[in-house]
Amino acid sequence: MRTIVVKAFGAEAPEADLKQMSIERRETVEKDVEIDIFYCGVCHSDLHTARNEWKGTIYPNVPGHEIVGRVARVGSNVAKFKVGDLAAVGCMVDSCRECEQCKQGNEQYCENGNTLTYNSRDKYLNKQTFGGYSERIVVNEDFVLRVPDNLDPAAAAPLLCAGVTTWSPLKHWKTGPNTKVGVVGIGGLGHMGVKLAKAMGAHVVVFTTSQSKVDDAKRLGADKVVLSTDKEQMKANYASLHFILDCVSAQHDVNAYLRLLKVDGTLALVGAPEHPLPIAPFSLIPARKNFAGSTIGSIAETQEMLDFCGKHNITADIELIKIQDINNAYERLLKGDVKYRFVIDMASLKS
Amino acid sequence: MRTIVVKAFGAEAPEADLKQMSIERRETVEKDVEIDIFYCGVCHSDLHTARNEWKGTIYPNVPGHEIVGRVARVGSNVAKFKVGDLAAVGCMVDSCRECEQCKQGNEQYCENGNTLTYNSRDKYLNKQTFGGYSERIVVNEDFVLRVPDNLDPAAAAPLLCAGVTTWSPLKHWKTGPNTKVGVVGIGGLGHMGVKLAKAMGAHVVVFTTSQSKVDDAKRLGADKVVLSTDKEQMKANYASLHFILDCVSAQHDVNAYLRLLKVDGTLALVGAPEHPLPIAPFSLIPARKNFAGSTIGSIAETQEMLDFCGKHNITADIELIKIQDINNAYERLLKGDVKYRFVIDMASLKS
Repeated sequence: MRTIVVKAFGAEAPEADLKQMSIERRETVEKDVEIDIFYCGVCHSDLHTARNEWKGTIYPNVPGHEIVGRVARVGSNVAKFKVGDLAAVGCMVDSCRECEQCKQGNEQYCENGNTLTYNSRDKYLNKQTFGGYSERIVVNEDFVLRVPDNLDPAAAAPLLCAGVTTWSPLKHWKTGPNTKVGVVGIGGLGHMGVKLAKAMGAHVVVFTTSQSKVDDAKRLGADKVVLSTDKEQMKANYASLHFILDCVSAQHDVNAYLRLLKVDGTLALVGAPEHPLPIAPFSLIPARKNFAGSTIGSIAETQEMLDFCGKHNITADIELIKIQDINNAYERLLKGDVKYRFVIDMASLKS
Repeated sequence: MRTIVVKAFGAEAPEADLKQMSIERRETVEKDVEIDIFYCGVCHSDLHTARNEWKGTIYPNVPGHEIVGRVARVGSNVAKFKVGDLAAVGCMVDSCRECEQCKQGNEQYCENGNTLTYNSRDKYLNKQTFGGYSERIVVNEDFVLRVPDNLDPAAAAPLLCAGVTTWSPLKHWKTGPNTKVGVVGIGGLGHMGVKLAKAMGAHVVVFTTSQSKVDDAKRLGADKVVLSTDKEQMKANYASLHFILDCVSAQHDVNAYLRLLKVDGTLALVGAPEHPLPIAPFSLIPARKNFAGSTIGSIAETQEMLDFCGKHNITADIELIKIQDINNAYERLLKGDVKYRFVIDMASLKS
């Protein structure tokens, strides 16, 4: 298969800093879209994978799955995009397309394992896939998204992972008007969860351990902010919520939040703490509560979310960085020192 | 309020054996039904409460919430029952009837706290309610069930708790034809879960730690029995089930069972282990799985289940005992030495 060589930024080993490297992309075939990458968001998964914290990282690793750019080339059979279109790629670049889940349009739950944007098996080149910390990417058009023109493309990049990861569970568990939604943890995911839940019509209650985030949570759209370290404030909210979006990736006491759910309520984890979380049976049984998890979202959901964000003028709160600052950005990410998402200006890689 | 005195069997203290005592019941008013109790099933909750293992037991305590008998007297305004009818009482004898859940017919999740059959506040006599280990009980007709005439009334008694506790989640999570249902733990609850899930049309897979229960699980209706201690057998069932009814009340590794669920599958706890169960986030997140709990069932569900059991000729597998054997039965219950439910022949109390 014919390939092109492009500049990228990635890790050669778990403990290595990310640095500039060259990688191969396939030349566009039939239904492929080649995207000139303008911006790429920095997700905590990038760091986990670059450092092999989830195991299974194949090196070199080029992270990045919040990709926005412009279509530079299209294959002979591409119908949905033309050169010059603003386009985006999220966490997946393919799936089996044959299993029950793919047929239902749930590629994120592909039973045969979908192809993730990075560190997945590349069916075409038979090596690992490389993500968006690079000049260009080539993706089958079915996994390329349209970006509404009215959105700032840099601030739209995080919608591709943080946006859909919060959108999908908010839709799946039927939040919206006449529902009360809790959002726990205001970081990259949580701040999008608040914006989306509010725009979807829910009454949004934010839970934070940090007094310093109270005003910011209100600015993001929270109807109410609860300091989760204050037992009385927590108690005042018992049995009040239909759904809780739990965006915390550190260990935390989920039982304290399950108490806040109404009968038949669900708490869905989208953050992924490393160790098991102890769940008391009596947190669930007496009011038929659910402790669930959710990961990213389907391609259709991603497009639906992007269109919704276009309509409601929603983007992420971002700090734009150069690719040369990525290692420092990772250190700041670990300290929670970002409001609320780093986005790489990929022009810095090209210059 | 006028009362009658009836013989009962109960505990005076957490460490005391159950013994014969006298208790008061109200005389029937307006919509009350007085039932001459023939049989009462022995639920593990009886033991937990008699021994104050869940705390909050008020003494004397008279357990028993799997009650079948015959209507002996009706109040002036009773419409649904007449003297001589076979009738039953389960875990609840009243609820607030005004909250959102009661209005939806979910009395088991009454937001103001329903009145349980024993160890709950008796609104009429302003003391604790007394259960079915007694000669007679007086209950508002809205909380009295009809028992199909074709069922053995002794073997029907456990349907009132073990039956509806498994029926309700099987219905709520939409099992039936074209679904694969796992049942974990074959005891009082689990053996009813197998019978009901099978009769509802599901493909039923039983998980047991005990080779000795394999044949019995098949006799109860299991399509397949898996030894949960055998890793290979467990692995062969990964991602195969739509729903798991977890009837185990001892500590156990729920993650091992969550692996058996398909995308969007739910594992519902109906047994209640004492300590928190560690749940790995990655047991839930990658396939949007749910870890849930469920308790008993509504009055409407209880009647629906009884009618279903009448139609399908389903009852519990029981061992009939005299009330004088109850303390020994509790010891055997702790050892799991019963197939699968003790039922007290209440004639033994009257003689």
